Amino acid sequence: MITVLFAAPDLWGEYSDVLPQALTEAGITAQVVQEADPGTVDYIIYAPSAPLQDFTPFVRAKAVLSLWAGVERIVGNATLTQPLCRMVDPSLTESMVEWVVGHTLRHHLGMDAHIMNPEHRWIPVAPPLARNRPVTVLGLGALGIACAQALAGLNFPVTGWSRTAKTVPGVRCLSGEDGLRQALTGAQIVVTLLPRTPGTENTLNAETLALPARGAVVLNPGRGPLIDDEALLAALDAGQIGHATLDVFRVEPLPQDHAFWAHPRVTVTPHIAADTRAASASGVIAENIRRAEAGEPLLHRVDRALGY
Amino acid sequence: MITVLFAAPDLWGEYSDVLPQALTEAGITAQVVQEADPGTVDYIIYAPSAPLQDFTPFVRAKAVLSLWAGVERIVGNATLTQPLCRMVDPSLTESMVEWVVGHTLRHHLGMDAHIMNPEHRWIPVAPPLARNRPVTVLGLGALGIACAQALAGLNFPVTGWSRTAKTVPGVRCLSGEDGLRQALTGAQIVVTLLPRTPGTENTLNAETLALPARGAVVLNPGRGPLIDDEALLAALDAGQIGHATLDVFRVEPLPQDHAFWAHPRVTVTPHIAADTRAASASGVIAENIRRAEAGEPLLHRVDRALGY
Repeated sequence: MITVLFAAPDLWGEYSDVLPQALTEAGITAQVVQEADPGTVDYIIYAPSAPLQDFTPFVRAKAVLSLWAGVERIVGNATLTQPLCRMVDPSLTESMVEWVVGHTLRHHLGMDAHIMNPEHRWIPVAPPLARNRPVTVLGLGALGIACAQALAGLNFPVTGWSRTAKTVPGVRCLSGEDGLRQALTGAQIVVTLLPRTPGTENTLNAETLALPARGAVVLNPGRGPLIDDEALLAALDAGQIGHATLDVFRVEPLPQDHAFWAHPRVTVTPHIAADTRAASASGVIAENIRRAEAGEPLLHRVDRALGY
Repeated sequence: MITVLFAAPDLWGEYSDVLPQALTEAGITAQVVQEADPGTVDYIIYAPSAPLQDFTPFVRAKAVLSLWAGVERIVGNATLTQPLCRMVDPSLTESMVEWVVGHTLRHHLGMDAHIMNPEHRWIPVAPPLARNRPVTVLGLGALGIACAQALAGLNFPVTGWSRTAKTVPGVRCLSGEDGLRQALTGAQIVVTLLPRTPGTENTLNAETLALPARGAVVLNPGRGPLIDDEALLAALDAGQIGHATLDVFRVEPLPQDHAFWAHPRVTVTPHIAADTRAASASGVIAENIRRAEAGEPLLHRVDRALGY
């Protein structure tokens, strides 16, 4: 009998049934508990909301398994010496692809002018075809690759950028500092899906926001700090950026007095682009516990030096 | 030297350069003219806006080539004895797929509540996944098939319906009267892409609009008369249909006094879902003239008995 500590109290309601079930289906005999003597815990299920901060007493724990894809709030914790795994949930990827493709098409088709058309204007001007609308995806992790390929499948010419060189079929891939400038230059829609690390903060800033085509759209379903908010507001007011649709923010919920709320060319979505589904995530957790018990390598293990 | 009569004066500006160029590229020596002695005309390029109504004097014409996919305004013309071809333009298909996928995702993601959020409400409730959102496409012609497959590629469970039985990979295909009821029952998004024929008029009526899931969305990028307008308004007011996004209407432009304009749960787009692009359409026309001159079968020839 192994002991799994579920350290995210606010999510217990979602997981209390489906996680034990997923473990049983994976052939694991385990008890999932919300409290335990640290010295008896084999695995820790973690979320950023978890009060747990000191991992030192968990001397027996074989892994800390995050329910979130982003691990920036835990990766720097010096007491965490156990292997850490990110969540890479297939339903999270699906959800992200749907948000990114949906908002890309929304801006591509100029939908807002039809959704809000109080003067009932009939202006039969069709948008260009997707094949003439260059889209750039910053970040080619699991989510970035899935989004880039879904957009390419709809004929958008897609450029993907990542810190280190990658190859993604159907996507023009660039990397490094020069590659970033090249990837942004002339883009009409820019999607930010980079991990949050010290190196990615303010990737979109006054200098880089000047590179896309005039009137380009920014979509940020990644992490709030990827964008310099003040620089984005200035670029919106100058018309250089035509619209920003943002799902993530430096402070969430987005404070009522933040300029994004009232800005006519900003759409706020409430951190819903990629939502982990309990049933699907439980399957991923169970598979990793099965692997650890069988001595197989863990999936989605975080490289602490890179931060993701 | 063959003579091509371009009988759609309002479109001449778009085609005057690209059509002769496409013919030249297809190896055809031709003059494209706006007026000619009918007895000298080899091919007629037609659009619904064309004043031409009497095809009797065009004794030498080998084909009438429509610039539109829909041919309902010409197919019943008794003077038309020449072969008639519909436009099946690859860019038209792309444009239609983009509109259908875009508006499907818009409704799937509940975007309107974020685009118009004057009270700045942060309600972090994610939509279901596409794989749990059944979509039904009525009509499995070239456009319907392309849309059904694009939606299936984004994980929507797609049901397609056509008058006669068809098979489309990845799509549950139904046909016939019973099939129509089955296809609509429980659908959460219904896309109407049937041709306009006497048999398809009011396909969505008071009876059939009662079949989808409560609050379902109707998307009509096909033809205005596919829907009984009064029945749709009643279903919207009753909450049975949650929203309708309509691109085509019985009268276009949609008259300012039509109830669709002001209805809070109707979005009007101005017949832009599938717009024929002159360059692309010219290539299709040139290929058909090349085929006719070479004695090969015409592409996209209309079956006059079926009406499309």
